[in-house]
Amino acid sequence: MRRITERLGGLAFGGDYNPEQWDQQVWKEDDLLMRQAGVNLATVGVFSWALLEPEQGRFDFGWLDAHLDRLHANGVAVDLATPTASPPPWFTLAHPDAMPVTADGTRLTHGSRDTYCLAAPGYRQAARGIAAALAQRYGAHPAVAMWHVHNEYATVCHCDHAAAAFRDWLRARYGTLEALNAAWGTAFWSQHYGSWEQVLPPRATQWHHNPGQTLDYRRFWSDETLAAYREQRDAIREHSDLPVTTNLMLPGYQVLDLWKFGAEVDFVGIDHYPDAAGVDAAADTAFGADRARSFGGGKPWLLIEQGTNTVYSASGTLPKEPGDILRHSLGHIGRGSEGALFFQWRQSRAGAELWHSAIVPHAGPDTRIFREAAATGAAVAGLGELAGSRVHADVAVLHDADVWWALDNRGLPQLDYHAALRRAHRALWDAGVTVGFAHPEHDLSGYRLVVAPSLYLLSDAGAASLRRYVEGGGTLLVQHFSGAVDEFHQARLGGYPGPLREVLGLRVEEYRPLAAGELLTLSDGTSAEGWSELLRAEGAEVLAAYTSGVMDRQPALTRHRFGAGTGWYASTRLDDAGYAALIGRVLAQAGVAPVVAGLPTGVEAVRRSSVDGGSRSWLFLLNHGDEPVRLDVAGHDLLTATEVGPDGLTLPARGAAVLRQG
Amino acid sequence: MRRITERLGGLAFGGDYNPEQWDQQVWKEDDLLMRQAGVNLATVGVFSWALLEPEQGRFDFGWLDAHLDRLHANGVAVDLATPTASPPPWFTLAHPDAMPVTADGTRLTHGSRDTYCLAAPGYRQAARGIAAALAQRYGAHPAVAMWHVHNEYATVCHCDHAAAAFRDWLRARYGTLEALNAAWGTAFWSQHYGSWEQVLPPRATQWHHNPGQTLDYRRFWSDETLAAYREQRDAIREHSDLPVTTNLMLPGYQVLDLWKFGAEVDFVGIDHYPDAAGVDAAADTAFGADRARSFGGGKPWLLIEQGTNTVYSASGTLPKEPGDILRHSLGHIGRGSEGALFFQWRQSRAGAELWHSAIVPHAGPDTRIFREAAATGAAVAGLGELAGSRVHADVAVLHDADVWWALDNRGLPQLDYHAALRRAHRALWDAGVTVGFAHPEHDLSGYRLVVAPSLYLLSDAGAASLRRYVEGGGTLLVQHFSGAVDEFHQARLGGYPGPLREVLGLRVEEYRPLAAGELLTLSDGTSAEGWSELLRAEGAEVLAAYTSGVMDRQPALTRHRFGAGTGWYASTRLDDAGYAALIGRVLAQAGVAPVVAGLPTGVEAVRRSSVDGGSRSWLFLLNHGDEPVRLDVAGHDLLTATEVGPDGLTLPARGAAVLRQG
Amino acid sequence: MRRITERLGGLAFGGDYNPEQWDQQVWKEDDLLMRQAGVNLATVGVFSWALLEPEQGRFDFGWLDAHLDRLHANGVAVDLATPTASPPPWFTLAHPDAMPVTADGTRLTHGSRDTYCLAAPGYRQAARGIAAALAQRYGAHPAVAMWHVHNEYATVCHCDHAAAAFRDWLRARYGTLEALNAAWGTAFWSQHYGSWEQVLPPRATQWHHNPGQTLDYRRFWSDETLAAYREQRDAIREHSDLPVTTNLMLPGYQVLDLWKFGAEVDFVGIDHYPDAAGVDAAADTAFGADRARSFGGGKPWLLIEQGTNTVYSASGTLPKEPGDILRHSLGHIGRGSEGALFFQWRQSRAGAELWHSAIVPHAGPDTRIFREAAATGAAVAGLGELAGSRVHADVAVLHDADVWWALDNRGLPQLDYHAALRRAHRALWDAGVTVGFAHPEHDLSGYRLVVAPSLYLLSDAGAASLRRYVEGGGTLLVQHFSGAVDEFHQARLGGYPGPLREVLGLRVEEYRPLAAGELLTLSDGTSAEGWSELLRAEGAEVLAAYTSGVMDRQPALTRHRFGAGTGWYASTRLDDAGYAALIGRVLAQAGVAPVVAGLPTGVEAVRRSSVDGGSRSWLFLLNHGDEPVRLDVAGHDLLTATEVGPDGLTLPARGAAVLRQG
Repeated sequence: MRRITERLGGLAFGGDYNPEQWDQQVWKEDDLLMRQAGVNLATVGVFSWALLEPEQGRFDFGWLDAHLDRLHANGVAVDLATPTASPPPWFTLAHPDAMPVTADGTRLTHGSRDTYCLAAPGYRQAARGIAAALAQRYGAHPAVAMWHVHNEYATVCHCDHAAAAFRDWLRARYGTLEALNAAWGTAFWSQHYGSWEQVLPPRATQWHHNPGQTLDYRRFWSDETLAAYREQRDAIREHSDLPVTTNLMLPGYQVLDLWKFGAEVDFVGIDHYPDAAGVDAAADTAFGADRARSFGGGKPWLLIEQGTNTVYSASGTLPKEPGDILRHSLGHIGRGSEGALFFQWRQSRAGAELWHSAIVPHAGPDTRIFREAAATGAAVAGLGELAGSRVHADVAVLHDADVWWALDNRGLPQLDYHAALRRAHRALWDAGVTVGFAHPEHDLSGYRLVVAPSLYLLSDAGAASLRRYVEGGGTLLVQHFSGAVDEFHQARLGGYPGPLREVLGLRVEEYRPLAAGELLTLSDGTSAEGWSELLRAEGAEVLAAYTSGVMDRQPALTRHRFGAGTGWYASTRLDDAGYAALIGRVLAQAGVAPVVAGLPTGVEAVRRSSVDGGSRSWLFLLNHGDEPVRLDVAGHDLLTATEVGPDGLTLPARGAAVLRQG
Repeated sequence: MRRITERLGGLAFGGDYNPEQWDQQVWKEDDLLMRQAGVNLATVGVFSWALLEPEQGRFDFGWLDAHLDRLHANGVAVDLATPTASPPPWFTLAHPDAMPVTADGTRLTHGSRDTYCLAAPGYRQAARGIAAALAQRYGAHPAVAMWHVHNEYATVCHCDHAAAAFRDWLRARYGTLEALNAAWGTAFWSQHYGSWEQVLPPRATQWHHNPGQTLDYRRFWSDETLAAYREQRDAIREHSDLPVTTNLMLPGYQVLDLWKFGAEVDFVGIDHYPDAAGVDAAADTAFGADRARSFGGGKPWLLIEQGTNTVYSASGTLPKEPGDILRHSLGHIGRGSEGALFFQWRQSRAGAELWHSAIVPHAGPDTRIFREAAATGAAVAGLGELAGSRVHADVAVLHDADVWWALDNRGLPQLDYHAALRRAHRALWDAGVTVGFAHPEHDLSGYRLVVAPSLYLLSDAGAASLRRYVEGGGTLLVQHFSGAVDEFHQARLGGYPGPLREVLGLRVEEYRPLAAGELLTLSDGTSAEGWSELLRAEGAEVLAAYTSGVMDRQPALTRHRFGAGTGWYASTRLDDAGYAALIGRVLAQAGVAPVVAGLPTGVEAVRRSSVDGGSRSWLFLLNHGDEPVRLDVAGHDLLTATEVGPDGLTLPARGAAVLRQG
Repeated sequence: MRRITERLGGLAFGGDYNPEQWDQQVWKEDDLLMRQAGVNLATVGVFSWALLEPEQGRFDFGWLDAHLDRLHANGVAVDLATPTASPPPWFTLAHPDAMPVTADGTRLTHGSRDTYCLAAPGYRQAARGIAAALAQRYGAHPAVAMWHVHNEYATVCHCDHAAAAFRDWLRARYGTLEALNAAWGTAFWSQHYGSWEQVLPPRATQWHHNPGQTLDYRRFWSDETLAAYREQRDAIREHSDLPVTTNLMLPGYQVLDLWKFGAEVDFVGIDHYPDAAGVDAAADTAFGADRARSFGGGKPWLLIEQGTNTVYSASGTLPKEPGDILRHSLGHIGRGSEGALFFQWRQSRAGAELWHSAIVPHAGPDTRIFREAAATGAAVAGLGELAGSRVHADVAVLHDADVWWALDNRGLPQLDYHAALRRAHRALWDAGVTVGFAHPEHDLSGYRLVVAPSLYLLSDAGAASLRRYVEGGGTLLVQHFSGAVDEFHQARLGGYPGPLREVLGLRVEEYRPLAAGELLTLSDGTSAEGWSELLRAEGAEVLAAYTSGVMDRQPALTRHRFGAGTGWYASTRLDDAGYAALIGRVLAQAGVAPVVAGLPTGVEAVRRSSVDGGSRSWLFLLNHGDEPVRLDVAGHDLLTATEVGPDGLTLPARGAAVLRQG
């Protein structure tokens, strides 16, 4: 990001710009309004394939030349996108075999976007071709500041191309067919593969799929998607040394292993659309931002898309409230984003997303939305000095796509991993603590506390990593239904959580999910639902026991000293108060304090710190509540350009401040 | 209809008659029971294709000759149907390419009914063939009184025949491919079409479809269906000058533009099955009847199908209650139907609809149902004098299939247009006012009040029509989420409701749908749910403002003097009491009075009036409630053949009267 | 079963054993633990096709030889399964035409189990081949005690092979096409078949299917499945005279006519997984066991699969509670099972059912589950003396797959036949009475009471049988919506329940299903929901009338003396208390007493009796409740090997006793 923020002279503000949907008169207004709104970065070309390559192999760049020149002249840098998420209609007719196929064999066709199979050679060649052509044409264009490959990779295919690529991937992973048979446990249900050609994607079948097969298909598909990304990135790099990234979808999509993507992009870019309002939306913003920063290894990253208002989806997303545009933007920037971009600059008058909100709504610039967006642009413009600064987290929540994928299977106890991740993050956010995410196999020694919500699948390497962490003095909280299976989706034998048993000083004998609505009580007065386990302490101290039903007097909550550290275990899903109390206890033991002590609920504090050796930092204070709040803080507020003295600061309802300190 | 009622010497009573399901002994009983029940019109042949054309091109009319002769001898006229809704099994094998295909590519086959693609040449030729053969054979048969083309047109197909026909339709509509691209906004999501052959029906695709494409496909399919109807009608007309119609499905089906059908049939025929009981069923009957009359331009029409009792459907329709057979029949006749027909005469003992109720139930004629049906037949026989009379409505509710189709799309704010139409009609029905329906582009000057429930799509021509209407002195009530898009499904820019802004004196800046269960209150004490809008009065008087949340003190309800008329606007969905009060206010302003003042809830009054210059009229009074009610009315009751004098009339619970007045 | 229990020297205990999923070290532990747990019968080979026939036609028996020898040496007999429920992946590639096809044309593929069409010649030949090869190899192996064909027959297919076989079946059933047309009532909806090739399975079509076609397709498929079973059975018999059976799925699956299967297996084997906990699970166990015994004509049968704990399914089955392993096993044995087997011996570490519980769980033998299972093994070992004894029932509940299939249709009033069966059984179980099941066409004269819950379809022969039963002195309780259609799914004319009208002394004129949540009250104070009927007593005594709504004062509950017996009729679904009272009345009239009088709720008593002329019997007493209970019984308790004297017995909470008496 540094090259971009240096080029922009500060943080980025702007969004997707699709001038091909409008005419010259609108372009003129765009130039004017972009200046008014403080736009300095526009994402261009996301949906332009049909215009850039009107028929296979014939390119037309003239119209795009003109727009880039115009933007450049207007002081707006360009995030130039490859248009490969939306092949034009001619692509379908030229490559019918490259249309995606669902698990039940339905072949999709154009009429929407993303109608391609990422594993189809015809698609890959066409995508490389347009990416290379764009890079060759615009690699040296002065408007271009960065490259944006594709858009929201999130499709899956089950066609014969995908099957062939899956076999290649499996061959590379397992070497021999017997190793594959062993890994998938094909002795069960008579699934032994006698030749590679018998291996298929998990297509429509009679009952449950083999869970090893479905897990590997997810891994394969994520890798295949990443390979498609790398091909475009490498094609671009032949003509440009500008940073290359893609916009990852957070948080609901689960097609990709984002740790792997984080390692291949020059910086992480995300799209973020909260599916809640009020304080919940703010917590969701923090959840997305902390994940984005973590997937990039803590480096600065970029919010590439957010909405100014409603985004219509199947679940009927809520409108944003006044003040949200600024506060959500600051929520991301405070957690490491080097700017705030929107989808999109101008609300489409036609097409599938005509009701997706934008900076310039249908009603035009004389609107609440444009005014708030422009004010946010001005605010972001005042934050330039913190470009490159970092966010520090003492606490990590473990996140592993393998767990998500493994749990998304029939015939398993039901557990919503994503909800478990959000809940852990939310409890820590409510406690005022800054959180990062980590993979179990990462070096965790930099964290004072590591929380593992329902780490159903835990590889041998991950288990060894967690053991090293606790042995070395770390505090680890493991939650129920962890360590149940290994990386091949094979059960841990001899008692769960297998290789964590020594660390936690216990042995889980039996999982006992609870019926919907069934409540258990614990000896410490909290209640629990959804899950219980029959476990035996083997060295661990029992902090609370079950007090009802068949689990009466069995351990529920334990703590175990291991090496220089401590392993905590919660064998059930505590109620909100009980979970908050538990989080409070492990934070206290780990010696983790909130960013600002004593904040009321709904007031968020997060700090970015200078990395160049200085002690300078910037404290973001966001009041998501409906009441003004008095805070005992001091510094220079960049939003109002005023000094906050020893008397502290009153944050208005739904207000924000960014205090330079040190 | 006049030719038919003249021929029958009064109103029609009867229903679908399928003698091919029974034997000679039953036919004899049918003759007897039809006389007992007062049947004078039977719909014959709807499901007879397999018998009429046992193999392709070989016709067998002998059995039908016999039935028509028998009916004629028994004094029953025939509504002769073409059997094209149910191609026989041989048709599937002869024309596999004419079987319908779903959006995801599943090709349906026979085993039910309606297994054909209306756009398949093989089907169209076969349908024309059987229609022509019937007309040739029976064009001069003395039993035949009218023609009934097909049955309940309601299927859709996505096959290659449909695709080819869709392209032809688009070519005719847009002329050039560039016009199509502009209309559909294909610049978004890279959907630009480079050749006509790239254009497809909205088949299974990855995410949302282009909303212009889906809207045009609905329009095309309605037109294609109408073309199929016209082909049969024209084939019949070569051999017969009797009236031709089809039985339209009301109200749940949304495949057809019924305004267009209304213009092509000789009179409107409908099927009506309420999905509620009690007063709600009566209101639904009025809703269906008022629509039927309106689609036919106010002319007499015909209720071709209703049930005597339960019709089993996915939603589990309720049984009818004692008295409903008569009162529902009168509900239709009072609103312009020239009779009351049923599906069907005799309840099937086998087949997919064996639990669909009938005039003669499984249990035979010694039943409540047959007795009530026969009594209804006698009652209808007594109403012959009002054949040809008309129903007058001072109020119109706007109805446009385009709105329905446009809203039935992913990625849009959710709004149930059909429910909005029903709600407006119901509020007016509750107020005792007779309602018609109109299309926005109609000449509306004959109405004192026009209500536009959520006219999401509004064409330029429709907007001009509404403007003319208000300018000329009309009262117009526009409800929220109107004028959002034009006829191409492109957003109105500069503020909604676009071309109605001047008429209403306001500008809507932002739509803010509410979450499920979220309530807002207005300054007039009513509450609102589902929807809100941020709007500015630009000349309009604010009648009520929002008083809660982020909308506090923003206008909610407005009124604006424009030309000689008034435009009212409700920007949210008022609660039932609030909506009733608003309807009361606009009725008062428009000077519209109820048919009979002061009726209690659940008592319906509607009037048919002589069209031959006289002042004679017939007042239908229907008590849908469980208590007798005293009414201050006078006239000659055709049902009891008694005079109702100045002391008025007591309508018993669930009772009815038809008073000749003047 | 006698040959097996003689061979085992007592009842069977054990379960599915899949050693191919494990290694030599585990096999050694298996030998040891099986002895500890008292295992004497292991089901082997269910999922072994891929190992037994690694490629088409090449067999590898060596590994299985070794396991059978090892088991034999360890004193464990073998239930040898044919592996035909799980064709290996090579089968898919060799026989793509034998993969199953859904109604909408999706062709399934391997990746699960049961991916075959039972009607495909390629599959049938392969299945016969492996069955014959196994029988030839192991027909004389000393370990083998019985044969287990296939596993849980429960699949359906709609492919062209299925279509061809369906036509053959129809030709055999109806002889002529005209008879088929008459039976299906194809005159409706123009479905007349002009040639056999036009007849198809009920594939995806536009609206409802013909209900005769769907009913016949279900019958055909059950017969086709049975033919596939018989082919394997006969192939085995060429090499072995040991008993042959299959494990039938109870109770949720409705693919098979289990009466027909019961007649073809050497003894009935079932799998049983309750979908409830506590007393409900015990009642469900009794429901399954009574059905298993009845399908086998009252002969001893075998519980082939149950779980030790949770089985994860779409509905999220509950964990079992401590004590359930023993009490559920005794629940089955008390009702005639000659043992208790489990799926499976050792919990799979991989594959689709890795979370299906087992005797040896993932956590190993040092667990609650293994200890309870081993204790159950010891208990079963002590019950050897009752092998061959029988269970007597004075009451039969009628069960006919035709009713189930006929009701599972669109366009019919909704009624859950399975729930109705369970409700009748449960009310009788709650009354402490032992229940059998019977088909309407059976000779019912041995029962004092016959209950017919909603016998929607009733054949002429079934009606005659019921008439004979009542005429001969029986007590018959018929519940609402019975006798509505005949065996061709054609309505009974002239009044329901058609041929039962004389027996019941009434005539039902009209079915009036109630809306969800709608309640009616009866004159005896009970309430009713879901259903009502307009009926006339024609000789029957009216015991209670409806007292509300349009049904006011119409008969609801009747009783009619017919011949030497009595026919009761309940025209609605009584509330629980009302239904229990009605059951009490008919039991009293029929002179049926509970097994043990005065038992509190949740305490179950059932008796097995010696068949060799003696008066010896064994009384099973199961306390499913949470409180100890004092019982006034005497005998020798086989579980504790102690004498229960005249002071009686205290059954602990969740405890059991098996008293030898006489």
